[in-house]
Amino acid sequence: MHELVNRILHGEKRAVARVLTLIENEDSEKPNLLSDLYPYAGRAHIIGVTGAPGAGKSTLVDQLIRLLRGFGLRVGVLAVDPSSPFTGGALLGDRVRMSAHSGDEGVYIRSMGSRGNLGGLGKASKDMLYVLEAYGCDAILLETVGVGQAELDVMSVADTVALVLTPGSGDAVQTAKAGIMEIADLFVLNKSDLPGATALLRELRLMISERLSHKEDWVPPVVSTTASDGEGLGELWSELVRHRTHLKEHGYWEQRRKQRFQEETLALVHQQFRDFVKRHIETDRQWQEVLQSETLNPYESAKQLLSTLPWLKN
Amino acid sequence: MHELVNRILHGEKRAVARVLTLIENEDSEKPNLLSDLYPYAGRAHIIGVTGAPGAGKSTLVDQLIRLLRGFGLRVGVLAVDPSSPFTGGALLGDRVRMSAHSGDEGVYIRSMGSRGNLGGLGKASKDMLYVLEAYGCDAILLETVGVGQAELDVMSVADTVALVLTPGSGDAVQTAKAGIMEIADLFVLNKSDLPGATALLRELRLMISERLSHKEDWVPPVVSTTASDGEGLGELWSELVRHRTHLKEHGYWEQRRKQRFQEETLALVHQQFRDFVKRHIETDRQWQEVLQSETLNPYESAKQLLSTLPWLKN
Repeated sequence: MHELVNRILHGEKRAVARVLTLIENEDSEKPNLLSDLYPYAGRAHIIGVTGAPGAGKSTLVDQLIRLLRGFGLRVGVLAVDPSSPFTGGALLGDRVRMSAHSGDEGVYIRSMGSRGNLGGLGKASKDMLYVLEAYGCDAILLETVGVGQAELDVMSVADTVALVLTPGSGDAVQTAKAGIMEIADLFVLNKSDLPGATALLRELRLMISERLSHKEDWVPPVVSTTASDGEGLGELWSELVRHRTHLKEHGYWEQRRKQRFQEETLALVHQQFRDFVKRHIETDRQWQEVLQSETLNPYESAKQLLSTLPWLKN
Repeated sequence: MHELVNRILHGEKRAVARVLTLIENEDSEKPNLLSDLYPYAGRAHIIGVTGAPGAGKSTLVDQLIRLLRGFGLRVGVLAVDPSSPFTGGALLGDRVRMSAHSGDEGVYIRSMGSRGNLGGLGKASKDMLYVLEAYGCDAILLETVGVGQAELDVMSVADTVALVLTPGSGDAVQTAKAGIMEIADLFVLNKSDLPGATALLRELRLMISERLSHKEDWVPPVVSTTASDGEGLGELWSELVRHRTHLKEHGYWEQRRKQRFQEETLALVHQQFRDFVKRHIETDRQWQEVLQSETLNPYESAKQLLSTLPWLKN
């Protein structure tokens, strides 16, 4: 076993930080690290928390951390912000948030910005979950901003997705995007002390009963919160636990872990093929000639390349 | 040659519509159609137009169509909205916009929403460009909403990317996302009659001179427009043409077409491998056993699957 993984399993917070950085940087050690981490995955409740900027996700997550620490649970937070601006705001916020828990072995918080590498964000954050799972987190809060493709991709690994909406933020339900409404297992009506909360609640309930297909035999509940003073947090946690129980009782919990394992396995197989293609582009004279040809007909050229890979026909 | 492609080459608008739909629906005819379409690609100036909702992109695109039709140029528009809401708004808008040009063979407008299939949007829209290119469009306006990963992916195929910003929409430059600022070849300061336009212009110029790396020896110009009354459209078109000339004179135009051809070729090769993997999952007993195993260690399982593909080592 990799020494750093051993140290993570023994609860060493600094080893968590080291390994997360190695994974984020696509270090050559990454495959070995992951291979050692995989066996410890699957126990944590992975909770996605998403919503528009300003919906109060960070405050909500902070309150959840406080609540769960009170129960003696170990909490991991992975905040993914594919749209982090020039200023590197995500990382600054990270440091401030971390320092509040710096002496607490039971909390690990990490933010990831895109740093211009949008494509890899989904994969990297999924890999980083394995570290927090091996660290023994009971719950992992996966916080994302917005509703883009990268966020949907990140959320696909969550057991429970909580969508945070606020009253007065325009017509929240109408402007919320189809994709994200449908992945929500739970709606959080945050800042529920603001005007318009009752109307939004009614609108949400109507939409849930009329429009949303209820996947996995689950009707998404709506929880009203005021994250700034902790109001409604207890109910939010109850509903999260109720969803986890639902998943376990109906076999979805197991099924989701199996699916994650299969996707991960096939991703590794596909990675091997990408490496194979890369090697051929770099070294195979025949491939280079086809790719440099002047015909510019991708279909004909692909046919020529594929003729050098007869096994793909089987 | 496919009959529909022949009809597109002869300028039949209905054939364009048919083939776009076949491509969007991943019809089994798609590979044959694309193979016949590829040879006619590469001549059109592909212009990306992106920016936040409400920035006035549609109005700007409509004015550009009017201008270009006045020059006798053939124009295609592909509007990609990965975040189209429940209502199918994109398609409704499409019909309204199309009807204004229904009698004009020189304009083709098509909108694409995600319809829950975020992942395939980038590829599908790239494939759809080939249809508009074969139709003989001189310019193709690729309109996207927002700044997510899907949009960045779509924009990667554009020769020139115009980012539309408006004054008073908060701090436009600060909130604009790093990735999208850097792919802009041209900034359009739209609604330039609104308060704050001068400040935004100053901010943009400062950012361009200090912060943005000038890729391909090009300093992105800023054009002020009021799309609603056509103000500044002439200058916008001049700058677009100036960029096209720049690309051609410095060899980037050719280079981009070659790169597009190579990416397309390799995408087809990768598609073949995905089909290969899919067949194995469906029919190969050994693969099925590994993927159903209880070990749940993706690394070990991938190793077992890869051992059945020894050629990947070469």
